Amino acid sequence: MELHSTQLGEFDLIQRFFKKQSEAMLAKNPGSVSLGIGDDCALLKTEPNHEIAITSDMLVEGRHFFADTKPEYLGWKALAVNLSDLAAMGAQPIGFTLAIALPKADAAWLEAFSKGLFSIANTHACPLIGGDTTAGPLNICITAFGAIPVNKSIQRSGALAGDDIWVSGIVGDARLTLAALRHEITLPQNDLEIIQERMHEPKPRVELGIALRSAATSAIDVSDGLLGDLKHILKQSNKDAEVWLDQIPKSTTLLKQSKELQNRFAAAGGDDYELCFTAPTSKRDVIKQIGQDLKLPLTRIGTVKPRQNDSLNIALKHDDGELSPDQVNTMLQSFDHFA
Amino acid sequence: MELHSTQLGEFDLIQRFFKKQSEAMLAKNPGSVSLGIGDDCALLKTEPNHEIAITSDMLVEGRHFFADTKPEYLGWKALAVNLSDLAAMGAQPIGFTLAIALPKADAAWLEAFSKGLFSIANTHACPLIGGDTTAGPLNICITAFGAIPVNKSIQRSGALAGDDIWVSGIVGDARLTLAALRHEITLPQNDLEIIQERMHEPKPRVELGIALRSAATSAIDVSDGLLGDLKHILKQSNKDAEVWLDQIPKSTTLLKQSKELQNRFAAAGGDDYELCFTAPTSKRDVIKQIGQDLKLPLTRIGTVKPRQNDSLNIALKHDDGELSPDQVNTMLQSFDHFA
Repeated sequence: MELHSTQLGEFDLIQRFFKKQSEAMLAKNPGSVSLGIGDDCALLKTEPNHEIAITSDMLVEGRHFFADTKPEYLGWKALAVNLSDLAAMGAQPIGFTLAIALPKADAAWLEAFSKGLFSIANTHACPLIGGDTTAGPLNICITAFGAIPVNKSIQRSGALAGDDIWVSGIVGDARLTLAALRHEITLPQNDLEIIQERMHEPKPRVELGIALRSAATSAIDVSDGLLGDLKHILKQSNKDAEVWLDQIPKSTTLLKQSKELQNRFAAAGGDDYELCFTAPTSKRDVIKQIGQDLKLPLTRIGTVKPRQNDSLNIALKHDDGELSPDQVNTMLQSFDHFA
Repeated sequence: MELHSTQLGEFDLIQRFFKKQSEAMLAKNPGSVSLGIGDDCALLKTEPNHEIAITSDMLVEGRHFFADTKPEYLGWKALAVNLSDLAAMGAQPIGFTLAIALPKADAAWLEAFSKGLFSIANTHACPLIGGDTTAGPLNICITAFGAIPVNKSIQRSGALAGDDIWVSGIVGDARLTLAALRHEITLPQNDLEIIQERMHEPKPRVELGIALRSAATSAIDVSDGLLGDLKHILKQSNKDAEVWLDQIPKSTTLLKQSKELQNRFAAAGGDDYELCFTAPTSKRDVIKQIGQDLKLPLTRIGTVKPRQNDSLNIALKHDDGELSPDQVNTMLQSFDHFA
């Protein structure tokens, strides 16, 4: 491993856009990194009684992003989605590797991509520590590392009957942006400009994840859609749930849409990179305080229930009643976000 | 992160080929893995006073392998090239993530790929701990993790003037296989069958790397070509070298070729995944013993020299004299292996 690219004859480019910025970050604060780019491996060391959390995501053109997406957004998002996974475990980011296949050596593209990438890397003091570069159809694979005290990680399997179900921030705007870009709906340009950041530059809830280590019983990041991701928690915790659709936090822009679309985009749109988590009712005040400290809305949207039978059940309530099982299934299967 | 693939609707396939085998490996020996596939992140813990070595390689069709390469070979090689990087640092493999883009869900392909992948994973007790799956042009990105006591890693920057230069095994056969498959040369089918394993199923020198922790001053794995990789050591150690071309270990099959081709393929062919390392002359007996214990030839091929001037210099000696600077440059630039 190393950021080499003899194949492309663009070693200087890679040096310019990645290695120097990596070294600049490490010079300021090496953190857990004993050895960065330039050897066969990078080296990370952890504090005593800490574990390393590891997550890997691969982004492919046409599947995770449009071909004309600004490379600066791509750089941001490729790392953001990984930091969001670290956040869901309560891990503190300590570094990442980048493996990237590029159709051609394009200085302007690399410069913009690295600008977005290092912007979020610097925000979270998470340096690039190694990787690989090759020619090929555009493919971005980031593996990110976080540190967490032993037995403090928040896992999907810990939800208890009676726990509150919470979600951070607001959900649905990434899917609403996608709908507008795909011309599935028409959105005033002004509205689109307000919400599109949610799709292009999601903010991983790293500080929230760390703050929740002692409060949450389980957590997941919302990438596939709120209810779909909640299902992962319920499945691994062997629980059911009741969710209040009208309580799911939505933007004023989304609230202008039809009720059906509001619920579908917020509950099953995906690409939100908020945290969905469970916590005992005794922690409500603690969690409210965390939200105030982080200036991040944290909203209770339901309750964990004991498992009734073999098949997982989420009861979807709204102000006028409850969705039928068929309606619930339709919503749970409506996974159709970009990624 | 997780091995999900809602996009492909092939969750069952992924489960069948990857998750079950990962769980089976972890059930036998969890090693450093506190949490495997199935949550937002995997968790690794290290022994006290150990670091984690990290390496990442991306393999792309048409660049790193032919489109008709057997998927079983691909699975083997994708992990092998990463374990080879761990070996070059002296790290003990502890796990890996796999991110893979597939053009389509193909059960037979996945079964064969996973067979090769888990074959080498089991050989080195290195379990799959997480990853990502998506639709897209075939792309395989593995990130591998190893454990190593603090201050025991073998780095590229440690070579000292007067050190011996060593290489493990034999080099050149992967390039010879490629030449035959590309019809650059004609090789008897029998010869090809003997050597082609070197290209398809390289054996990362993991045990050697660990054994060398206390003997070698620097090491690198031979992926780009022996001399090119040695150059990385010399550059980072700020040294020159003298290398004896006729001492570079070659197979009997390669020795049937012209002297020019022998030297070029062995010294600059690449894709060998042997270790090139330096060690003080006082360690010769220790190193010979390591070679005997591992039943792996270890050959002295040169000497590290003090840096003479700003530009790095490798003097290439052979039994009849020394290559001219032009001839050396030609050989060093002859990097043309498949990867």
